[in-house]
Amino acid sequence: MSAEPTLALARFVASAEPGAVPGSVAHEAKRALVNFLGCAIGASRHDAVTRAIAALSPFAGREQATLLGRAERFDCLTAALVNGMASHTFDFDDTHLKTIIHPSGPVAAALLALAEYLPVTGSEWLHAFVLGVEVECRVGNAVYPSHYDIGWHITGTAGVFGAAAAAGRLLRLSEVQLVWALGIAATQASGLREMFGSMSKPLHPGLAARNGMVAALLAQQSFTSTTQGIEGRRGFANVLATARDYGKISSGLGETWELSYNTYKPFACGIVVHPVIDGCLQLRAEEHLAPEAIEAVELNVHPLVLELCGKKSPRVGLEGKFSVFHSAAVALIDGAAGEAQYSDARVADARVVALRDRVVATVDPAMAEDAARVRIRLKDGSVLERFVAHALGSLARPMSDRDLENKFRALCAPILASDAVDALLSACWRLEQSADAGAIARLTVPARHGANAIA
Amino acid sequence: MSAEPTLALARFVASAEPGAVPGSVAHEAKRALVNFLGCAIGASRHDAVTRAIAALSPFAGREQATLLGRAERFDCLTAALVNGMASHTFDFDDTHLKTIIHPSGPVAAALLALAEYLPVTGSEWLHAFVLGVEVECRVGNAVYPSHYDIGWHITGTAGVFGAAAAAGRLLRLSEVQLVWALGIAATQASGLREMFGSMSKPLHPGLAARNGMVAALLAQQSFTSTTQGIEGRRGFANVLATARDYGKISSGLGETWELSYNTYKPFACGIVVHPVIDGCLQLRAEEHLAPEAIEAVELNVHPLVLELCGKKSPRVGLEGKFSVFHSAAVALIDGAAGEAQYSDARVADARVVALRDRVVATVDPAMAEDAARVRIRLKDGSVLERFVAHALGSLARPMSDRDLENKFRALCAPILASDAVDALLSACWRLEQSADAGAIARLTVPARHGANAIA
Repeated sequence: MSAEPTLALARFVASAEPGAVPGSVAHEAKRALVNFLGCAIGASRHDAVTRAIAALSPFAGREQATLLGRAERFDCLTAALVNGMASHTFDFDDTHLKTIIHPSGPVAAALLALAEYLPVTGSEWLHAFVLGVEVECRVGNAVYPSHYDIGWHITGTAGVFGAAAAAGRLLRLSEVQLVWALGIAATQASGLREMFGSMSKPLHPGLAARNGMVAALLAQQSFTSTTQGIEGRRGFANVLATARDYGKISSGLGETWELSYNTYKPFACGIVVHPVIDGCLQLRAEEHLAPEAIEAVELNVHPLVLELCGKKSPRVGLEGKFSVFHSAAVALIDGAAGEAQYSDARVADARVVALRDRVVATVDPAMAEDAARVRIRLKDGSVLERFVAHALGSLARPMSDRDLENKFRALCAPILASDAVDALLSACWRLEQSADAGAIARLTVPARHGANAIA
Repeated sequence: MSAEPTLALARFVASAEPGAVPGSVAHEAKRALVNFLGCAIGASRHDAVTRAIAALSPFAGREQATLLGRAERFDCLTAALVNGMASHTFDFDDTHLKTIIHPSGPVAAALLALAEYLPVTGSEWLHAFVLGVEVECRVGNAVYPSHYDIGWHITGTAGVFGAAAAAGRLLRLSEVQLVWALGIAATQASGLREMFGSMSKPLHPGLAARNGMVAALLAQQSFTSTTQGIEGRRGFANVLATARDYGKISSGLGETWELSYNTYKPFACGIVVHPVIDGCLQLRAEEHLAPEAIEAVELNVHPLVLELCGKKSPRVGLEGKFSVFHSAAVALIDGAAGEAQYSDARVADARVVALRDRVVATVDPAMAEDAARVRIRLKDGSVLERFVAHALGSLARPMSDRDLENKFRALCAPILASDAVDALLSACWRLEQSADAGAIARLTVPARHGANAIA
């Protein structure tokens, strides 16, 4: 082992050269940005977002940074909180499959706000984003799965390290300042899985974005911390996990890239349910299934499906996202599993409830996380079956750039006019040529009198 | 068991009657306020505070609330963060001995900021403070000691519940809103003991104050959370502790008062060291000891002393506060253990270092936490010994109101003119008669041209 993990990460962030990032990884950063922006803009009118804005606006500072998809501007810290939260509100954001971290929210929310405050070019922004995701996911790799199993929402707890590292890079922190920033991040790491199903879940990446930025800003002023925020005896990895592997932090640092393992959701719910939805959609399309003809739906699933998404009788849309039973039912009835399928009304719909109650899920410890078996017994006695080896959106079957654009357009449609959506997409795909990365956030603001503008 | 713990606390805070608080508890609240203000004002020029202000001021909102002892005004949330941090910077704040929580920082910092934003009478303020400390300490009681032993700085982790409850009371939250506020507090609970000895330790009560206030403000807008933030399977007590006793939350709620167990430090360092300092000061005063005559200092101490304050060779003043060796040395040389004895210079002083290196501490598992035995072997062969059964400042030997006033005056002397100190003390002792609790914070601002004013 070379340097200790906290120091290794600080040294990496301080000294990384943009040219060392492979082209495929830089492109993945732009795909992640597109997906992040679509999720945040799409959720910009959600109750969770408007309530948070109502709570925080009396205390927000100068109008430094855009609330994505909205007219208001807040100080950078409050904007990062709101935007990070918005990006996770639909549970439609990206996923680092090795850890179930949703990596873009904490990092992009912090960096977009900072890019409206500091002069930041597009290529500087993308590089800081790649570094932030790298730090975040490597911290997650080191403590997963014990950390998650205990009950920590790893997007919040690892995310704060990513936001601190990325913001610290834009602030040009020295190595020791980055060590402190990671320490200040460590001592703010928080977010409990108990919050799943409530507005407090998406709050986590928002808090991680703001808290990570605070860590970097404090360190910039030489506000001190421990030098062993991650590996110290009372540090992050020892206190918040029961097992840890620091080799996963230092091994291959600067050579392999965690963004390569990033995935995007085609469906607006917990990712572990996606293979089931994929199978239901395939059977429905191929067999022209009428829901009334279905006697029972039998699922064989990975153990995490019932642990994370086992809500038998969800009461509101947010809970529906954590119900494999609701997800299978709407996929079979609506032929879709987008945001519309997870409304309060859809969760309470009598036809959906009736089919949901005929869905049975059985855990198969041998099943891969991106696989599932769907068996449908029809009232006429016949049986349909589909094994999904790799769900759409998995690493083996990634969404294409065009898939991501279509998802982005659907998410933005209620908020932005289509020409504004085009302009934003174009700006994202050409971000490395931009002299001002802060322009991205401003392009998300609806035109005052645009066709699709919302006041 | 009656109501679940989270609901029990929410119901208690929502329905508590001010008249139910015994007079002795209300008086203790004022003693705690005096001690809190003295610590925060005294530390208002400390590097940790000025660096945090430099980092956060570009992002602070409207000038709603006073930075204690200073001319600047920030938005309530940022002011609560800075003031909560300042109150713990000297490690001179109060201690709830059952849990080692420093209870006033998170609660008072949040409430003082809110009292400049909302109309709050002195008696409403004191009642909210009593309730906040009650919630904070009961949450701590339920998870202590396993929570602390794992590595959590309980002042941060329990403090956020106290700040949320107290702020929620002033915001007149409903029972369900208070349940959510406690849930949002739970998911922000953070603060690692690894930070001890750095500026990030006092950051914890500041973050707890701000985060608890955010929790209450979000809940006020019906931003939802789990209803079982404390006791849920993935909630605070299960994730951040290995053992828990919910009876300590609900038993006697509204009948016994945790403020009754609050203590104040006569010495500016870790409380577990106080019996040693007390013994050293007694021997020095009675025996007219010259440090050069000392061959060795042998201490018998409670196990926590070496665990928390075992730094053999502190390098800076902050580390000196966690060194029983430095503390014994300065007590014997200076005849004091105030803030001046924990400067960087004092820690590096050759005479102090020479005596410190002749101090030996041995753990005695039978020793009480507020007891210690000090044995001094002199170069002439004679031996002096003192057993301290209860250190000054312990529950058995509490500081008097006059002691607290003297400590307050000493802390404020570098910042405020003596007539301003008198006015502030008087306002604290008569707070229940005040129509505007926000006036307290404004009284801490140095007069522009006062004799002791600092620009």
